[in-house]
Amino acid sequence: MNNIKTLKGIIAYPITPFDAEEKVDLGLFKKLTDRLVTSGSHAIAPLGSTGVLPYLNDAEKEAVIEATIEVVAGRVPVVAGVSNLTTDRTIYHARFAEAAGAAAVMIIPMSYWKLTDDEIFMHYRKVAEAISIPIMAYNNPATGGIDMSPALLKRLLEIPNVTMIKESTGDVQRMHYLRRVLGEEVAFFNGSNPLALAAFSAGAVGWCTAAPNLIPDQNLALYNAMLANDLATARQAFDLQSELLTFITANGLPRTIAAGLQIQGIESGFLRSPLAPLGPGDLEKLRNLLQ
Amino acid sequence: MNNIKTLKGIIAYPITPFDAEEKVDLGLFKKLTDRLVTSGSHAIAPLGSTGVLPYLNDAEKEAVIEATIEVVAGRVPVVAGVSNLTTDRTIYHARFAEAAGAAAVMIIPMSYWKLTDDEIFMHYRKVAEAISIPIMAYNNPATGGIDMSPALLKRLLEIPNVTMIKESTGDVQRMHYLRRVLGEEVAFFNGSNPLALAAFSAGAVGWCTAAPNLIPDQNLALYNAMLANDLATARQAFDLQSELLTFITANGLPRTIAAGLQIQGIESGFLRSPLAPLGPGDLEKLRNLLQ
Amino acid sequence: MNNIKTLKGIIAYPITPFDAEEKVDLGLFKKLTDRLVTSGSHAIAPLGSTGVLPYLNDAEKEAVIEATIEVVAGRVPVVAGVSNLTTDRTIYHARFAEAAGAAAVMIIPMSYWKLTDDEIFMHYRKVAEAISIPIMAYNNPATGGIDMSPALLKRLLEIPNVTMIKESTGDVQRMHYLRRVLGEEVAFFNGSNPLALAAFSAGAVGWCTAAPNLIPDQNLALYNAMLANDLATARQAFDLQSELLTFITANGLPRTIAAGLQIQGIESGFLRSPLAPLGPGDLEKLRNLLQ
Amino acid sequence: MNNIKTLKGIIAYPITPFDAEEKVDLGLFKKLTDRLVTSGSHAIAPLGSTGVLPYLNDAEKEAVIEATIEVVAGRVPVVAGVSNLTTDRTIYHARFAEAAGAAAVMIIPMSYWKLTDDEIFMHYRKVAEAISIPIMAYNNPATGGIDMSPALLKRLLEIPNVTMIKESTGDVQRMHYLRRVLGEEVAFFNGSNPLALAAFSAGAVGWCTAAPNLIPDQNLALYNAMLANDLATARQAFDLQSELLTFITANGLPRTIAAGLQIQGIESGFLRSPLAPLGPGDLEKLRNLLQ
Repeated sequence: MNNIKTLKGIIAYPITPFDAEEKVDLGLFKKLTDRLVTSGSHAIAPLGSTGVLPYLNDAEKEAVIEATIEVVAGRVPVVAGVSNLTTDRTIYHARFAEAAGAAAVMIIPMSYWKLTDDEIFMHYRKVAEAISIPIMAYNNPATGGIDMSPALLKRLLEIPNVTMIKESTGDVQRMHYLRRVLGEEVAFFNGSNPLALAAFSAGAVGWCTAAPNLIPDQNLALYNAMLANDLATARQAFDLQSELLTFITANGLPRTIAAGLQIQGIESGFLRSPLAPLGPGDLEKLRNLLQ
Repeated sequence: MNNIKTLKGIIAYPITPFDAEEKVDLGLFKKLTDRLVTSGSHAIAPLGSTGVLPYLNDAEKEAVIEATIEVVAGRVPVVAGVSNLTTDRTIYHARFAEAAGAAAVMIIPMSYWKLTDDEIFMHYRKVAEAISIPIMAYNNPATGGIDMSPALLKRLLEIPNVTMIKESTGDVQRMHYLRRVLGEEVAFFNGSNPLALAAFSAGAVGWCTAAPNLIPDQNLALYNAMLANDLATARQAFDLQSELLTFITANGLPRTIAAGLQIQGIESGFLRSPLAPLGPGDLEKLRNLLQ
Repeated sequence: MNNIKTLKGIIAYPITPFDAEEKVDLGLFKKLTDRLVTSGSHAIAPLGSTGVLPYLNDAEKEAVIEATIEVVAGRVPVVAGVSNLTTDRTIYHARFAEAAGAAAVMIIPMSYWKLTDDEIFMHYRKVAEAISIPIMAYNNPATGGIDMSPALLKRLLEIPNVTMIKESTGDVQRMHYLRRVLGEEVAFFNGSNPLALAAFSAGAVGWCTAAPNLIPDQNLALYNAMLANDLATARQAFDLQSELLTFITANGLPRTIAAGLQIQGIESGFLRSPLAPLGPGDLEKLRNLLQ
Repeated sequence: MNNIKTLKGIIAYPITPFDAEEKVDLGLFKKLTDRLVTSGSHAIAPLGSTGVLPYLNDAEKEAVIEATIEVVAGRVPVVAGVSNLTTDRTIYHARFAEAAGAAAVMIIPMSYWKLTDDEIFMHYRKVAEAISIPIMAYNNPATGGIDMSPALLKRLLEIPNVTMIKESTGDVQRMHYLRRVLGEEVAFFNGSNPLALAAFSAGAVGWCTAAPNLIPDQNLALYNAMLANDLATARQAFDLQSELLTFITANGLPRTIAAGLQIQGIESGFLRSPLAPLGPGDLEKLRNLLQ
């Protein structure tokens, strides 16, 4: 089960729920994560942006990873987010995830300044040398603040255990370009919800998404139609969910997933400040989209 | 044949070749346009950006439209570019195209300043009222200088003979959005070469492209695979041509198509200044891509 | 008076007014242009974007230049806009302007596609070789569609009669960079109204602007304070006019200048379609700004 | 001395130096900070981006603030950076800074996602209510990931102890706009080095900059000329330093300031990974710029 060669399909991102005092609610986290597994997701990715990784302190991050491993219990692979601003802390968290039983780690080069390509390369290499499990290099300029060029991504793939790319620029030309430059052997994952159809069309092997918290059947329907080479059905499936995908991405995943769960009658806890619940107008839009 | 309901598939853009004195070479234009028809394109679109519309005077534009109608001879529809900065001149050229036998006209709101939505709407409406053939509204901020919002495009479609949209922003999310907002009945065409696969996946009925001047079989293979709902084959076809599509778009269609034809042993004439032939480095790249 | 070494200060852009049938109204043009001279502008620049150059046919452009020369009558230099998409037509209009008595011509590399640096250089060189009067190279990516790099501008200045730069990117860092790279001898003009204070602070010798149609005294007050090295007074002058400068730039110079003149009780004629008069809301804002 | 009404002029940002094991070197930090005071800076701002705030853990941040207060010893005001991703931790550090003796705190709404205006407002308000010293609201989309609109900044100023704005978008039009909207009473600081001249021209009361680590006399010369309403001298001073200002900003302040100090023969310690020393080519450029 831990064989990462099998990582593909729908990689689901759980939220990190908080209690009324804004403390992490681990019990609720486990319930919500279990739902993702039982509803068919092919892997679980705790501590992504949906899981508000940057808002958690070290102890909280460790508790969330341990809770994920415990509740998933080997049913699907766990891909743990361990990104950190400094190389030292990224190594720390990557080692923790490996020891806890994660199948792989996901790393975005978080940055407050523009890092050079050499700095990013060394960052990944030092982390890679400190662990034995595979690394998914994650490119998302909108959150990480750095846009890793295809040339840099290619260079990262020379590091033995950097074996996967997650691309979230929202630019399908970039995906085609990556595929041309990196070749078909490199497992390439899409992290942009509104591009789900285009990315699978372009050859993505997986879709990293928080949407299975709300619409797991629709996400799987799209993926299964693509697997069956049935674009007409895939497009129908995508057209059904695309407005929701655009909405949750545009309005913030932690906020919209928490709100969507509540609309569906599922407890989702509280947000940690400064994040605040979705306003009434957006809540109404989301309610309509979920019907 | 003139029934525009049949407009779909590969809409091919001929170049406008010049002689050594930079005069339009109509004889060569007819030969190159005939090639596009005989190699299988589903429609011919003279006076696009590939045809250097903005570089031609009125008499030249009229001669090119007449030459197109004559050489196509009803085998496929002709969609004539009639865009102009002023409303008055756009009406003039649209009427000319209709009288000459064009099946439709394509209009981009050319602009030197930012026009308001109302100005653009009135521009289309006045032209539409002056002719009886359908209009394809063309959005391409990179050349036209204006990005028409989906809301504006929707409004334009309320004008009876504005029935088609050509979208060239290169943003696949925009295409999905257009389809959601405009509905499936609106014929939506893709004008961005590097997005050919993604646009067909998103539901485009046609692809407006200069590529059939160089690789008509590959363009048709992609389209036919999409028609057959065979995404795997379509992706293979696209992967074969995507680097060339990106190259010709990035390096300028008039330049690269002329150079590509010469590489294939086909006379393509001269360019009109300030356009200059592709430099030796780019020429070599193009040669490699065409093999 | 024709000695272009004296070109500095406020370079004023007249509008091109039309009659009710959208024909150029030369009589009114002369009146409006004379106002610019008598109210103190240091040069007159017909056929800029304010003068809707791209909306005029050849005969209209020639008539406007002749009318300008006639009404200005040597009181200040005339800098004629002669930009055109093709090199051939640019040469034609540059020669006409020189023969008619213009002190200099202003040329922006108009483009529908991205031109290469070599193409732009050759465009300027061919025009420069065809005339004897100086050329002001004008950079404005928002209207021309091309952003000429400082390196390219430097190269253009190697052409003997390309002696002036007009920069309208709206980026004051670019102005500082130009000054470092080009040296203090190069006459550098600002074409961005909202940057008037910053550009003079950065060392611009002149300000190319349509604002003197409406507020000549304020424009001159700013310039004179800068000449007197009195920044405090200059800032006061700028603060008085900056909101108006931003408004006319953001809402389109031909529209806003025509509307502003009418508010001031001065006849300004009609616009040529697709341009339409300012809507009532914007008109009210402009009225308030002019008080 | 703690009266923040006197905050103006050159606000200097010390680097946070590390030892060979990448631990904070407090002794060296104090030496470098003392230099900033003795060379004439008007205030000291530890824990900015130059001070690699986001790379430090809580204990390190606290030690740096205490060291600053100790070494500055009331000679000039201390403005402490206390930005954090969560509201809770921002409050914690703001209270620490106040208790330690800081005259004010600087807060940028750090973000991994796009926060709503309401979230940002509540973030500032909660922090403001927890402390008694003034807050400088800092806008820098390039590092913080959020561009606070002038309207939002205006709203923040309704919070009693949010009294200062630091603007680093690098857009001088924004500065003029802020001044128009916020009025002259609001103390507005410039955080963009390449805009130093333009910002003072626009009315900024202070310049937040790391440059005094390397060229304090030039920074003061610019400021003093502006105070004396002598723009010609100010421009000369700015022209002397503008290339260096652009270089250190473009190549990363922590890297370039550390390298520049070494070039000047001043110990500056090590960087914390992933940050790496300036490469040899850039080092050579910096050496030339410093001569």
